[in-house]
Amino acid sequence: MNCEIISVGTELLLGQIANTDAQYISQKLSELGINVYYHTVVGDNKQRLLEALNIAVKRVNLIITTGGLGPTVDDLTKEVVAEFLGLEMHIHEPSLEHIKEHFKRTGREVTDNNIKQALLPKGAIPIYNPNGTAPGAIIEHEKGIFVILPGPITELKPMFEKEVMPFLRKFSDYSIVSRVIRIFGIGESKVEEIIKDLLENQNNPTIAPLLGHGDVTLRITARVRNGEDANALIDPIEHEIKERLGNAVYGFNDDTMNSIVGRMLKERELKVAVAESCTGGLVSDKLTDIPGISLVFDRGMITYSNEAKIELLNVSEDTLRLYGAVSPQTAEEMALGALNHSHADIALSTTGIAGPDGGTSLKPVGLVYMALADKCGVYSTKHLFDGDRRKIKEMAALTALNLLRLHILEL
Amino acid sequence: MNCEIISVGTELLLGQIANTDAQYISQKLSELGINVYYHTVVGDNKQRLLEALNIAVKRVNLIITTGGLGPTVDDLTKEVVAEFLGLEMHIHEPSLEHIKEHFKRTGREVTDNNIKQALLPKGAIPIYNPNGTAPGAIIEHEKGIFVILPGPITELKPMFEKEVMPFLRKFSDYSIVSRVIRIFGIGESKVEEIIKDLLENQNNPTIAPLLGHGDVTLRITARVRNGEDANALIDPIEHEIKERLGNAVYGFNDDTMNSIVGRMLKERELKVAVAESCTGGLVSDKLTDIPGISLVFDRGMITYSNEAKIELLNVSEDTLRLYGAVSPQTAEEMALGALNHSHADIALSTTGIAGPDGGTSLKPVGLVYMALADKCGVYSTKHLFDGDRRKIKEMAALTALNLLRLHILEL
Repeated sequence: MNCEIISVGTELLLGQIANTDAQYISQKLSELGINVYYHTVVGDNKQRLLEALNIAVKRVNLIITTGGLGPTVDDLTKEVVAEFLGLEMHIHEPSLEHIKEHFKRTGREVTDNNIKQALLPKGAIPIYNPNGTAPGAIIEHEKGIFVILPGPITELKPMFEKEVMPFLRKFSDYSIVSRVIRIFGIGESKVEEIIKDLLENQNNPTIAPLLGHGDVTLRITARVRNGEDANALIDPIEHEIKERLGNAVYGFNDDTMNSIVGRMLKERELKVAVAESCTGGLVSDKLTDIPGISLVFDRGMITYSNEAKIELLNVSEDTLRLYGAVSPQTAEEMALGALNHSHADIALSTTGIAGPDGGTSLKPVGLVYMALADKCGVYSTKHLFDGDRRKIKEMAALTALNLLRLHILEL
Repeated sequence: MNCEIISVGTELLLGQIANTDAQYISQKLSELGINVYYHTVVGDNKQRLLEALNIAVKRVNLIITTGGLGPTVDDLTKEVVAEFLGLEMHIHEPSLEHIKEHFKRTGREVTDNNIKQALLPKGAIPIYNPNGTAPGAIIEHEKGIFVILPGPITELKPMFEKEVMPFLRKFSDYSIVSRVIRIFGIGESKVEEIIKDLLENQNNPTIAPLLGHGDVTLRITARVRNGEDANALIDPIEHEIKERLGNAVYGFNDDTMNSIVGRMLKERELKVAVAESCTGGLVSDKLTDIPGISLVFDRGMITYSNEAKIELLNVSEDTLRLYGAVSPQTAEEMALGALNHSHADIALSTTGIAGPDGGTSLKPVGLVYMALADKCGVYSTKHLFDGDRRKIKEMAALTALNLLRLHILEL
């Protein structure tokens, strides 16, 4: 079964809202093993909606519309679909009762416009809308299956989950299960090179590389008959990829670098302190996004000025004068200073040039040193990040957390 | 001129991401007075993309594609558009240089896949991509105008603003000019109440309230023929709204609370220090997003543990024991400590319960105290924020910056 989602609404074409309806329905259909081949957005315009329906029935057999069920004259989806399928409209009494009830409760009067919302094409299966006044509808027709849903996502979601998914499940005898592998520290093309043979020979499961926010992700997707075990297909591929990429694999599915590092610190009861210059608080911000991090996050020191580096972290004036604030020496003294002036087991530091100004040919914008200190000693790494100030801060913060992750793995 | 936006990417059809590209481009075209009639999403599939192009050229004369310009075999938008228009591909040397430069800078090797990204259809106007390796292209063809853009929004945006908008402007004889008024500290319904008569009598310009990220925004939109002065329509309305809302208006258009506060600090040469507990570095992170902030941002101290509050900020043990870490007393001592242990003129502090755990009936999740100290003294404010941990951190950080803004306005 192949689907097209047609979203109706001029507000989408004006960019006032994003088409989250289509995103949500696509996710759900993917779980059901129903292919979504197209999303289409048209405005509140009868002729263009008719044409879109005409194109859709030629290329798919399931058409889901969202939006255009409101009370105003602009809202015409139901009427146009009925006309397209040659169906008459009639008042659906339970929906009318629901509308009257709704208005009574909110102390407003029912207008003719609202009564229009209770009209449904003859033969349609009505879909109850617990969060609004517009019912939805399912129509089984020789031209295809049509599902008509309201636009607001809070109305659409419960209707889709409670009534549309059970209805559609019978048309699909398989389902799709995905697992995302999250990788940090290796570029997208390099990852693809390492797993080139897997990508070339993929079939079921499939492997799709995606550039994330600073990381690279691989989505492994298996298609199985209902009742079959998708993990039996996914596990061996995941295992093979982990073998090849090693510690560059930092997590799965909704894991974030913060959540992984936070979990490792908590599990091993390692207290951390952070000394930040160019990341300006972002490393600490990411760590403190994790609930319960206060058990292991001792403190952060954002030593933006040289004075702050000297006074809070005991970085030596000589080091700053001889090597500059952006240097491996300063990074290491910052990390040691944070370790010695806190109750932490591990200290992490960053210093660099976030730009847009302040770069030189020897120390360009994007140059960042970071260091890690614990009771065994201190070491630093050098990085060069691309992009604007925010992107450099983001990449530096994630890379610093990754350094901490790799360090803990070696303990 | 009528436009269709074709977004290419199976990840959109799987619902992994929302089509924010189409939303953004639609907003911008609306400003230019260019009608967007359709959004279409197709997967990474040559045949279906060809068919989508075939349908599009019959119903619009401007086609903008997004996505499918990456280095992998799945990425085929440029190639398919070129085939559709009967154009050959050739290496665009400056783009190839840019790609090589990018890889050299980041210390990685250029692969054949990446060289593919420098291919452009013959006769196309290349669009430079400052934030990525894939160039875009504009093609003027008898079948219509084609604009080809990469999918990641951070790459697409600057390309659209710098090169596509100036190119398209000549095809429209009127334009839509908007100005956004940014408001902080008053809720949306309260704002609407204060300007109710203006909202009811709007025509040209129109006034649209929008809930932003922690702030409330009003978009004033005027439609004028080219050459006419939109400001003459917008200025009086803006003036009236500012009169009514006073200091709650903190900025306009793309202003952020960070940028406004950063600018005020720099203009007045006021040095600031920050002592954060529940915001965990986010206040400092926001301040250090501003280029050149190092002139006025002395340091930040993220005193998550009680020890850190005592050792770094000299908060008294008695205060912590008697009133707790989340109290006006602690907030004030934190601000005073930051002022006294730094070179700052003003110090700002936050302490609260970001959740999800740690709340009590007396001190619920979302309770945040903040304080401000300078040579004239110290004062604190109390707040209760809604939402999850991240949202509470965000609102607390913005509110702290707003406190700083209001304080500076009074100096």
